[in-house]
Amino acid sequence: MEGQSAKWIIRGNELLDETAATSIRSYLNMLYDQVDKDDQRPVVPLSLGDPSAFSCFRTSPEAVDAIVRAVQSAEFNSYAPINGILPARRAVAEYISADLPYNLSADDVYLTAGCTQSIEVILSVLARPGANILLPKPGYPLYESRAGYSKLEVRHFDLIPEKGWEVDLESVEALADENTAAIVIISPGNPCGNVFSYHHLNKVAETARKLGIFVIADEVYAHLAFGNNPYVPMGGVRIHSCDPNGILKKYGIVDSIKSYFNISTNPATFVQAAIPQIFEKTKDDFFSKTINIMREAADVFHEKTKEIPCVTCPHKPDGSMFAMVKLNLSLLEDISDDTDFCLKLAREESVTILPGVAVGLKNWLRITFSIEPESLEQGLDRMKAFCQRHSRK
Amino acid sequence: MEGQSAKWIIRGNELLDETAATSIRSYLNMLYDQVDKDDQRPVVPLSLGDPSAFSCFRTSPEAVDAIVRAVQSAEFNSYAPINGILPARRAVAEYISADLPYNLSADDVYLTAGCTQSIEVILSVLARPGANILLPKPGYPLYESRAGYSKLEVRHFDLIPEKGWEVDLESVEALADENTAAIVIISPGNPCGNVFSYHHLNKVAETARKLGIFVIADEVYAHLAFGNNPYVPMGGVRIHSCDPNGILKKYGIVDSIKSYFNISTNPATFVQAAIPQIFEKTKDDFFSKTINIMREAADVFHEKTKEIPCVTCPHKPDGSMFAMVKLNLSLLEDISDDTDFCLKLAREESVTILPGVAVGLKNWLRITFSIEPESLEQGLDRMKAFCQRHSRK
Repeated sequence: MEGQSAKWIIRGNELLDETAATSIRSYLNMLYDQVDKDDQRPVVPLSLGDPSAFSCFRTSPEAVDAIVRAVQSAEFNSYAPINGILPARRAVAEYISADLPYNLSADDVYLTAGCTQSIEVILSVLARPGANILLPKPGYPLYESRAGYSKLEVRHFDLIPEKGWEVDLESVEALADENTAAIVIISPGNPCGNVFSYHHLNKVAETARKLGIFVIADEVYAHLAFGNNPYVPMGGVRIHSCDPNGILKKYGIVDSIKSYFNISTNPATFVQAAIPQIFEKTKDDFFSKTINIMREAADVFHEKTKEIPCVTCPHKPDGSMFAMVKLNLSLLEDISDDTDFCLKLAREESVTILPGVAVGLKNWLRITFSIEPESLEQGLDRMKAFCQRHSRK
Repeated sequence: MEGQSAKWIIRGNELLDETAATSIRSYLNMLYDQVDKDDQRPVVPLSLGDPSAFSCFRTSPEAVDAIVRAVQSAEFNSYAPINGILPARRAVAEYISADLPYNLSADDVYLTAGCTQSIEVILSVLARPGANILLPKPGYPLYESRAGYSKLEVRHFDLIPEKGWEVDLESVEALADENTAAIVIISPGNPCGNVFSYHHLNKVAETARKLGIFVIADEVYAHLAFGNNPYVPMGGVRIHSCDPNGILKKYGIVDSIKSYFNISTNPATFVQAAIPQIFEKTKDDFFSKTINIMREAADVFHEKTKEIPCVTCPHKPDGSMFAMVKLNLSLLEDISDDTDFCLKLAREESVTILPGVAVGLKNWLRITFSIEPESLEQGLDRMKAFCQRHSRK
């Protein structure tokens, strides 16, 4: 309507704007705004973990076929049950149980529209007045944004670079109190590329048990391990009960998860319907091929960053698709901090890298290596040239 | 972990449980729990608007083909921009603009995972401390649930059954104050099946303009009109500006919508990618066939309910897939209210109908008629038998 004549009382939501301002997407927008449109070279995107954009990481033909069949059947166009359709939940339970010393049932599984919705659901459920949550630093900032939006207090524990980014368990004990709901553990790790050992996960579980807090195990990169540490699921640690769902039920968590789904959106039903066939039909060599490319990319990443004097990688990545490198600002002439580094790198070299501050560590950088190895080499060569150009004389 | 030995501090979320308790899904669960598993007759679902379950409402082959092509192209497996991919937003803008006296641009469009996420986004954006929103009674209860969860105060205005479920504009004026953010208008209507005329929408717009509040026009059933009143989009009312986005930008609403998407999930990219082809390729006769079945179903519904003495339909549905009928309890012997009616009907006749209390009108019923006309007849015949059996002697 004619804006000038009415007195509009509507306003934006400040809490929302504040909590979203630190999202990875906000940083990406900032970076891509810097890229010089006249640069003839292709942009090398080392800022976002999105391998599907590259043909070497193309999804399996079996996955495509499973979606196509589900759509063409016309049997999966209706609303799904709030926790997901049964065959899909059963297939997920079986898949996960293969790595566990006990069997999950379909009722232990809730299907979400990606990891983003999983985080949204669980943090919304935990956000009772006064509650707090323990998050890793560095970490995945959507946890901070969703906690902030739900007014769930965030307390950060450190991951220790010198110890392969293991959890600083002393800081966990110091942070927890009677209002602590849970601790978040991400393995294989984003942003550090580390993979927690059975031994370390066991210690995390013992600490959580002692404190009486739940562990949220973010294993979105499960099985994406290609280094010295094999992938171990948190659920495989033996002090776990065989009935995690029983405890979650008893304390009202299952009811609240269902409540959230009652007022929330679901993944498209035909996508859910494709899940059993994707698990069943996808061949092992699809996964081994992907793992091999990732191993090669991690090697390229590690060798190339060694050649760049102003950055140090304390731990060669074993898994996921990210690594953290430390920026040595004293070797650079006209770079004020990590964000300044990334903005100038984007502008001068059309290479995007996420500043560490976006994931909780100022003056570090998060580098994604899940791109075609050749592009990765080019990107790191440009980064090297950038550092040489800006190095202190 | 072993639940008995640890003192778990984790608890469910009461606010979430309370706000979700009144969702349509909660009522559906209650109804389906009543259905007698030994009843050999098929369940007739008149409680949920989900026509895809019936072959006569099967989606167009062009829509299936569009999804298949998008998946097989492997070009749409990456993350989408937060507001949706450009070709899809452009196609939606063109489609909507065809009914408007001005053109929307792609930047006026945000793609969400269904109407559920649209409601979630806009109510989250409007929920500033102290703000309130005006919702229709009867209405679509997800608005109440999401407002409650976001602590946005709800004020109800009446839809008047004797006036074809038009908005009681006097009650709107009485309810609004300086903290009112918006009024929600649903046309074609859920749950009433009414379609607002241009004349009435104009009056709503004038009232909103006078009060300085925004109109949220829920047109999820746009073009699904088959009665005397043709579908008129709220955006077609002439006192609208040609730059709604300009006003939304000025007051921070656009920024907050983007903020919400920054921390929220997106519809699957390949589903977005199918949108332009769905608009372009789907033939007119798909829509006319659907409209014709709906018109037939509305006729069946209206004729059949006339034969049931204990219910009255004040307005034959013109659109959407729902209608409200009033229950005359004084004609029934052992039915205490609408919920009791629906539970007993589900148990005795395997027919599910939503009690009016679920949509804000106690002792009414919401009946969905978007099922195969033959099943609809059967369901209403069983409902008639049920009423006769329970009628006061």
